[in-house]
Amino acid sequence: MSRVRIYVTYKPSVFDPQGATILDTIQTALGHQEVSQVTVGKFFDLTLPAANLDASVKEIAEKLLVNVNMETYRYEVLEEAE
Amino acid sequence: MSRVRIYVTYKPSVFDPQGATILDTIQTALGHQEVSQVTVGKFFDLTLPAANLDASVKEIAEKLLVNVNMETYRYEVLEEAE
Repeated sequence: MSRVRIYVTYKPSVFDPQGATILDTIQTALGHQEVSQVTVGKFFDLTLPAANLDASVKEIAEKLLVNVNMETYRYEVLEEAE
Repeated sequence: MSRVRIYVTYKPSVFDPQGATILDTIQTALGHQEVSQVTVGKFFDLTLPAANLDASVKEIAEKLLVNVNMETYRYEVLEEAE
């Protein structure tokens, strides 16, 4: 079985309120003024067979895991099937 | 400035209800019975100076971004400061 990681982030055109809030807290509450940008994302690790991997990941991502209106995704193979 | 990515996941001992729910949906609603495991995580991309990078990331992660009771984290440098 292979293990893949699907990264999901907001499209660049979409404002990331969570990232902005976290940045503000880092700068004010923690005093790390040197941090200039924060963006937040999520990822899904899936274990599935190597056969038809690309098609399966594409379907699962676009039909379930990703809001294609606001989000973009990419994936990488963490572990190849033996 | 450097860009780092902090990955946050549940500790292995902590049950991941979201991952279990997503797996069930993938197998039933999408019919992908071949998928055997799903885990969910989040990541934070920070832009900050290279100086004291390790100490800054450790403090920001452990004092703000990570619930150290239930979660574990690691980070990687995506881009080194020029």
